Amino acid sequence: MSKQKVLLLGATGETGTSILNSLLTLNKFEITALVRPSSAEKPDVQALTEKGVKILIADISGPAEELINALTGIDVVISAIGGMAQMAQMGLVEAAKKAGVKRFVPCDFASVCPVGVMMLRDEKEEIHTQIKKLGLGYTFIDVGYWYQLSFPPLPSGRTSYAMFPGMQVPLHGDGEAKNILIDIRDIGHFVARIIDDERTLNKYVYGWGDILTENQIYDMMEEVSGEKLERVYVPDEEVVAQEKQLLQAFENDKTNVRLRIGVMSTQYAISKYVRRDNTPENAKSLGYLDARELYPDLKPKSFKEFVGDLVDGKVQRPYAKGMSM
Amino acid sequence: MSKQKVLLLGATGETGTSILNSLLTLNKFEITALVRPSSAEKPDVQALTEKGVKILIADISGPAEELINALTGIDVVISAIGGMAQMAQMGLVEAAKKAGVKRFVPCDFASVCPVGVMMLRDEKEEIHTQIKKLGLGYTFIDVGYWYQLSFPPLPSGRTSYAMFPGMQVPLHGDGEAKNILIDIRDIGHFVARIIDDERTLNKYVYGWGDILTENQIYDMMEEVSGEKLERVYVPDEEVVAQEKQLLQAFENDKTNVRLRIGVMSTQYAISKYVRRDNTPENAKSLGYLDARELYPDLKPKSFKEFVGDLVDGKVQRPYAKGMSM
Repeated sequence: MSKQKVLLLGATGETGTSILNSLLTLNKFEITALVRPSSAEKPDVQALTEKGVKILIADISGPAEELINALTGIDVVISAIGGMAQMAQMGLVEAAKKAGVKRFVPCDFASVCPVGVMMLRDEKEEIHTQIKKLGLGYTFIDVGYWYQLSFPPLPSGRTSYAMFPGMQVPLHGDGEAKNILIDIRDIGHFVARIIDDERTLNKYVYGWGDILTENQIYDMMEEVSGEKLERVYVPDEEVVAQEKQLLQAFENDKTNVRLRIGVMSTQYAISKYVRRDNTPENAKSLGYLDARELYPDLKPKSFKEFVGDLVDGKVQRPYAKGMSM
Repeated sequence: MSKQKVLLLGATGETGTSILNSLLTLNKFEITALVRPSSAEKPDVQALTEKGVKILIADISGPAEELINALTGIDVVISAIGGMAQMAQMGLVEAAKKAGVKRFVPCDFASVCPVGVMMLRDEKEEIHTQIKKLGLGYTFIDVGYWYQLSFPPLPSGRTSYAMFPGMQVPLHGDGEAKNILIDIRDIGHFVARIIDDERTLNKYVYGWGDILTENQIYDMMEEVSGEKLERVYVPDEEVVAQEKQLLQAFENDKTNVRLRIGVMSTQYAISKYVRRDNTPENAKSLGYLDARELYPDLKPKSFKEFVGDLVDGKVQRPYAKGMSM
């Protein structure tokens, strides 16, 4: 059997790097990275070539004909485009259908959440809707929230190197909302298995490393580090009021990226802690398959192992190279 | 085990009557019909009481508190509300969640179709979205298109008694689009099994009697009746142009029921014949379970059996008692 031809969009981003590393390790895929013209000369992109990745320079907002040509012969498209650029996938979806792509994995890779709660999730839903309308084969993969954005800083300062700047990780409500979580490095391991599995065609699937409450996260941080953490609990009402305020401001200033990120992150908090959407029970209700049940031999990092890496200085700060818009 | 308590909305309509009859036959459910105050005195409603159906008079657009009280203690809500009143289900959904209803079956009961093709389907999607957002247990049941609206009249006139007035059944395109079809009388048999099955909780399911092209339907009508049918093929472009025209007119006159029905019926034609959405393959891609696989012992009427009934004068005209708005 010839190798599956996979086209990856966003190969140098957080999620894309995880996916690319796993695909390369398995040596069962022929990988092409789709790169926009403005990024063609970046060192990161140059480095891809050295890893044996084919580079395809194309503008996904460009002429349909070019995109269709570029996608012809590709079996699987995986999009790990940035959170700001979800809607730019629309042209890629159309082209993939016309080019005969067998499976399209759009940029989900986030927490489990129904429609009508988060702006970001609703944009992803528009992509899903278009894929289904066109009858394009798909898998929608979610992975919960990243370990790398879910730990509070240690008072000693020894975790600061891995903290996303400005990241605040207080506790919410009673700190008892459990959430599906994952180490960014494991996302790719799930994706590589999922795209090579007929059972996941035209399905929703979620991969995960641990299911934890914020109280449990704080407990583990204290246990592994031996340090004591101050626990600040943010009441639900405060998060709800903050969303309202940010949404209003964003409505009046739709191109303001800082406001958009504010809305997105507050809506994540509402979904994860106030509504408590990001759970295995909810994933099941929403029709997801559990990737841990599909691949019982796959052993992702537990949060405790991640904390071990964290205090050992082995974790990479997310978005260290900036956030692609 | 005590009987499941089922509340049925639209019990005197086409789909509702089919569902009610099956539920009554099985004698495993405690059935309540939800009836709006303005219909309380109708003979049809009076007749329900004689069949052992409890009547609950309530306005689904009325105060939330009353609706929640009415739904408390109900296990399953089945809505077979008219095609004009889909959005009126919104309050019922909210109340069902608050009342602790275990499973909500909204008014789907139609052809398999993705979002973004038919106004009617998109309204149903809004109901689905709200159900998922609230975390209310659900089953979404589709059944394809009715035999009773899918046969051409025989030249002898002996099928006229069963024809919906004004119904035209030409062939579309090459007449080769296959469609999921069902006898209205079988809808209930599927629904009764589905709501009593844990495997269908939080799933999409479709029931069906036959999968046929229009050419096959014409062939069977000729074969069973011994009469010869004229075959008129409507080109796709004509249906597409008609939708465009009707949609424009409807945009300017949104409360015009005749225009709304025109849009709905033209969009059914687009979905069924131009796009060819209403197929088992598409249902599978959209995540549906096949009720015939779940219940292999259930033997719905084939279209050929239906045509036998039809020429024997045993078929009821759909909407003989009018269309409820």
